Amino acid sequence: MPQTDRINRRVLLASRPHGLPSLQDFRLDEAPLPEPGEGQVLLRTLYLSLDPYMRNLMNAEGARYAPAVAVGAPMVGGTVSRVLTSRHPDFRVDELVLGNAGWQDYALSDGSDLSPLGDMAQPSLALSALGMTAFTAYVGLLDIGQPQAGETVVVGAATGAVGAVVGQLAKLKGARVVGIAGGADKCRLAVEQLGYDACLDRHAPQLAARLAAACPRGIDVYFESVGGVVLDAVLPLLNDHARVPVCGVIAHYNDDAPATGRDHRPELLSTVLQRRIRMQGFVILDHYAARYAEFRHEMGEWLASGQVKAREDVVDGLERAPEAFIGLLEGRNAGKLVVRVAGG
Amino acid sequence: MPQTDRINRRVLLASRPHGLPSLQDFRLDEAPLPEPGEGQVLLRTLYLSLDPYMRNLMNAEGARYAPAVAVGAPMVGGTVSRVLTSRHPDFRVDELVLGNAGWQDYALSDGSDLSPLGDMAQPSLALSALGMTAFTAYVGLLDIGQPQAGETVVVGAATGAVGAVVGQLAKLKGARVVGIAGGADKCRLAVEQLGYDACLDRHAPQLAARLAAACPRGIDVYFESVGGVVLDAVLPLLNDHARVPVCGVIAHYNDDAPATGRDHRPELLSTVLQRRIRMQGFVILDHYAARYAEFRHEMGEWLASGQVKAREDVVDGLERAPEAFIGLLEGRNAGKLVVRVAGG
Repeated sequence: MPQTDRINRRVLLASRPHGLPSLQDFRLDEAPLPEPGEGQVLLRTLYLSLDPYMRNLMNAEGARYAPAVAVGAPMVGGTVSRVLTSRHPDFRVDELVLGNAGWQDYALSDGSDLSPLGDMAQPSLALSALGMTAFTAYVGLLDIGQPQAGETVVVGAATGAVGAVVGQLAKLKGARVVGIAGGADKCRLAVEQLGYDACLDRHAPQLAARLAAACPRGIDVYFESVGGVVLDAVLPLLNDHARVPVCGVIAHYNDDAPATGRDHRPELLSTVLQRRIRMQGFVILDHYAARYAEFRHEMGEWLASGQVKAREDVVDGLERAPEAFIGLLEGRNAGKLVVRVAGG
Repeated sequence: MPQTDRINRRVLLASRPHGLPSLQDFRLDEAPLPEPGEGQVLLRTLYLSLDPYMRNLMNAEGARYAPAVAVGAPMVGGTVSRVLTSRHPDFRVDELVLGNAGWQDYALSDGSDLSPLGDMAQPSLALSALGMTAFTAYVGLLDIGQPQAGETVVVGAATGAVGAVVGQLAKLKGARVVGIAGGADKCRLAVEQLGYDACLDRHAPQLAARLAAACPRGIDVYFESVGGVVLDAVLPLLNDHARVPVCGVIAHYNDDAPATGRDHRPELLSTVLQRRIRMQGFVILDHYAARYAEFRHEMGEWLASGQVKAREDVVDGLERAPEAFIGLLEGRNAGKLVVRVAGG
């Protein structure tokens, strides 16, 4: 192994951001290659997943489902890695594993957070179409949203990592599917490549009126990951007994202070009441034990048959992760954002 | 039948209220006794139910579940009546029926909205402990809230018509039950007569801190019928996977314009997401077909055994209905508000 490989590049949280993170909130650091102890493996990161939830973990209070990243510590994140050295009986050298190595070239693991991936021609799929975001789409849409054939499903972030899968699964179930996305390019992609019946540009004027026109029979399932003005446009159109799986509120992740001006909560509660709406938050970590195996099986078949297409947005180089992550929070990517950290 | 009885006193909607209704929004009117046609019955109102939903029907837009009351028309409402004259094969004279005669002494019906009550020693029970509000408590708490033994249930309006039953049913299911009510007297009633483990005065300072102290293990079910500051106090205490049946938002029924100041919706959405909360609105009319028979059977047994006690707040005289209804919206009653229109 050449000397240069004995350096572990890591992206650390340099400071806690206020609002949208800037490049200064991250620091690229070099540390010695860690040595696996007995019962540990040394992992080489191949692909790193970048996801909006990471923004929450940059705040001092962290999130209910995971603690905050400490200032000066590597950013956390899901990864596909190759086992370089194994002192663990269950893992062999060269094996591909899904884990949580974070934003770094190398990491140690005691194996408890690793899942063997077997042989995969395209290992990044374990972070995209077969990964956490696609599983989020599957559980949120199918288990909570429960779309019926002929119903109308609206996807708040139509071309995002989760939304791109939600849209395709909703079509598969026979629903009319209307997306909302930021910009004409994404809307074109949604209709032409993801099969949406219509997709509306969030930035163009009169979103509410355009959404009403695109949903002549109202909305039965609203897959919420945005909040804000998108929810404003959706609420008046929700049908009786509509379901609203809540998988994110990305419009508010960078809020530093409570918004002022008008309180939208009473109107939300009245709508939930009068239209008998079920609004349900979910965090995908809760669902692996009960649903992951079936997801993996079904999604594998849909991918193989071409009924669902993987949409990846691959960025090359660990050093570009901060910039790519900021772009994700600004809505600049389309499909699942993945960093290729090493060639494979 | 004496001449005076040939007058039908009715309480009409005189004008659409802005905010809290005033007595001037109602008008007591006298009309001739209606004559039943073929297939109709003439009903004498014995008891009239007064319920917060009626406030929504005073607005021009009405509600999703029922149209607005027209200005100049009698206020609508659920009633227990006696059949005075029958030209309908299924109803006999003197029979007790549950129906929707509204705020008036007499009414006609084609029978389609009537349920025979059989012999009842206390007919008002059909509007209280065996009526719509108790059924609301039953469906909302048991079907949507699903409290488990040892969990903590919070009831936003502890001594209201619905809340008084929710609290008792939650105790029956083995939960710790904490109520919130307006005033020390109601709180005393909640603990001493309804079996609440604790009840907090909404009007006293530091509701949030007192609620936190009363719910040391957090909140698993919040029975929402209030909104506003009560919801503000509840939100930070909701446990992961908490359930929030929404049966009303009485704090906002009199809102004329959207509230301003601070937007509480982003915080609500974040809480729903991070704590995987299921918030579900329901309108009791949807549930009669599937659940009423079982409710009636179970509740009848609980009443007979004394496990649930009927709490009625009976007002004498149709002419007092407007004043009693305004008091209901102001939170002045305790238990189910019923107007005794005629002796029986």
